[in-house]
Amino acid sequence: MKKRLELQEYRSGILSGNRVILSQAITLVESSLETDQALASELIQSLMAATGKSIRVGITGVPGVGKSTFIQAFGRLLLDQGKKVAVLAVDPSSQLTKGSILGDKTRMENLASDKRAFIRPSPTGTILGGVSGHTREAMLLCEAAGFDLILVETVGVGQSETAVKNMVDFFLLLMLAGAGDELQGIKKGIMEMADGLVIHKADGDNLESAKKAKSAYQNALHLFPLSENSWSPPVILASSVAGTGLEEVWNMINEFESKMKASGFWENNRAKQRLDWLDDQVRVLLGLAFLGNPDVKNELTLQRPKVQSGELNPGTLAKRLIQLLFSKN
Amino acid sequence: MKKRLELQEYRSGILSGNRVILSQAITLVESSLETDQALASELIQSLMAATGKSIRVGITGVPGVGKSTFIQAFGRLLLDQGKKVAVLAVDPSSQLTKGSILGDKTRMENLASDKRAFIRPSPTGTILGGVSGHTREAMLLCEAAGFDLILVETVGVGQSETAVKNMVDFFLLLMLAGAGDELQGIKKGIMEMADGLVIHKADGDNLESAKKAKSAYQNALHLFPLSENSWSPPVILASSVAGTGLEEVWNMINEFESKMKASGFWENNRAKQRLDWLDDQVRVLLGLAFLGNPDVKNELTLQRPKVQSGELNPGTLAKRLIQLLFSKN
Repeated sequence: MKKRLELQEYRSGILSGNRVILSQAITLVESSLETDQALASELIQSLMAATGKSIRVGITGVPGVGKSTFIQAFGRLLLDQGKKVAVLAVDPSSQLTKGSILGDKTRMENLASDKRAFIRPSPTGTILGGVSGHTREAMLLCEAAGFDLILVETVGVGQSETAVKNMVDFFLLLMLAGAGDELQGIKKGIMEMADGLVIHKADGDNLESAKKAKSAYQNALHLFPLSENSWSPPVILASSVAGTGLEEVWNMINEFESKMKASGFWENNRAKQRLDWLDDQVRVLLGLAFLGNPDVKNELTLQRPKVQSGELNPGTLAKRLIQLLFSKN
Repeated sequence: MKKRLELQEYRSGILSGNRVILSQAITLVESSLETDQALASELIQSLMAATGKSIRVGITGVPGVGKSTFIQAFGRLLLDQGKKVAVLAVDPSSQLTKGSILGDKTRMENLASDKRAFIRPSPTGTILGGVSGHTREAMLLCEAAGFDLILVETVGVGQSETAVKNMVDFFLLLMLAGAGDELQGIKKGIMEMADGLVIHKADGDNLESAKKAKSAYQNALHLFPLSENSWSPPVILASSVAGTGLEEVWNMINEFESKMKASGFWENNRAKQRLDWLDDQVRVLLGLAFLGNPDVKNELTLQRPKVQSGELNPGTLAKRLIQLLFSKN
């Protein structure tokens, strides 16, 4: 049994911006223990009025694109502008947890040691509530702790990008020049989800090809359908090493914020995201109850290969499983 | 109470290719009556061994792109090649149900009157099992009835494209020249789902701009991530009025089929789709059980606005609702 604080200790610690307590509270949220879950739920509910005031930015891109370097440099810029910055990672395979940020102290100590910054690797072990459920709740806790910007990092190769897109205000895609090859790791559909593209490592010998890539992507993006918010995603050249383009990224996000707040899209989108989150959580919990039922699980293990081979109609098995789940015994 | 046949009558009727009985069987599948559902499930299960032999092609594009004209002309070409063709529509708003195919007899009589063709508008009324669940089962019935090609029509503006992408072998996107404007109706992400693009109405005065559009889309598609099947989607100019490009579309689909069968992707993809379908159906049925519980429904109606406004934590409400669903009484 891990040490836990009282609800009130978590609450006042977070509201006073205590990063240690914030961190402990996120651990509580990520716990799969039922008592922890109940306490976490109560804690978040008690903080709801203090949430929602940050800008939530999702950052994605394949490994090698330089996400951690970018986040470090971009985070530094924001700190210099007097912002409080929290960085959360979604994927277990995220670079944050692989040590390239937390482990490589020399690279990240700038950001990690600043008390206006908070860096949290992705949850491991449990999937109760889903990884994205935990990240959403961690985001709320960071907001209650007074962070102005929440950067949510995700690797652009897995299942989590849509989840991240649905929990942030602005979704940023990092790319490299040399269009084509480096893209093969990115999942389809992600380019169209982006609110902004950064051609990263646009420095030195890369600069010329980065400029070409920028114009190619700009042309391609014009062929994409316009978002319902009428925003067309800019393409920005940036180098975290040279420090170029970062301010342009920040200006882009600010412009997005003021336009979307003026049009009402900002708040409408958040309201929609909250309802989507409710749906997600219900789905996850229903799924856990379903798979947690031993009769369902046995039947599923037995029959699933027959569905896969085309021998058994999926609809027929689904009905049988649901009957098992809700049968009296 | 509608008239129903015996299981054996449906079964032998379908296996002998009787289009009237096929149509009645699809009506059975779409029914929300529990007895109909049980019979439908048994019927499909009894036909599983006779399914899976067709090529399943999804066709999407915004209203105005000429989907019904294309399907008619393309279907005609396939019939002339000795193929049996079934056309299913997914969206309630589909042009099939709006009469542009079924109603406008002069345009579609070619296809609709040919006994090697079968045209079925989208289901209306019930959503039990989800529209896509019905369409999948209708597809299996058509296959058991011996159709070689199933064309599944969907309007590229709603929620159903991903569902259709996940039930077909080949996903075709129809576009118009004049890149940009006409795209605003298409949902984001659909372009990246396509296995092939058709620039439609590429005739007369449109031909020049269609050629330009073709090269613009080809360039854009090169920037897209490659699919896991390593297929790069061709862009084809077509005119249903002039009859051009249709054979090229058919050749593309054939090339796709032979390549994917050779690589093993075809069967792997179908196996994956069957498991996805099982997941979908479980999700739909869990959702129906959830919303069908009066306690859950009351609490949800009461609390949902508080989630939407940010007053109530979605995770907290989700847990409460699941407890209500599974509470004894």
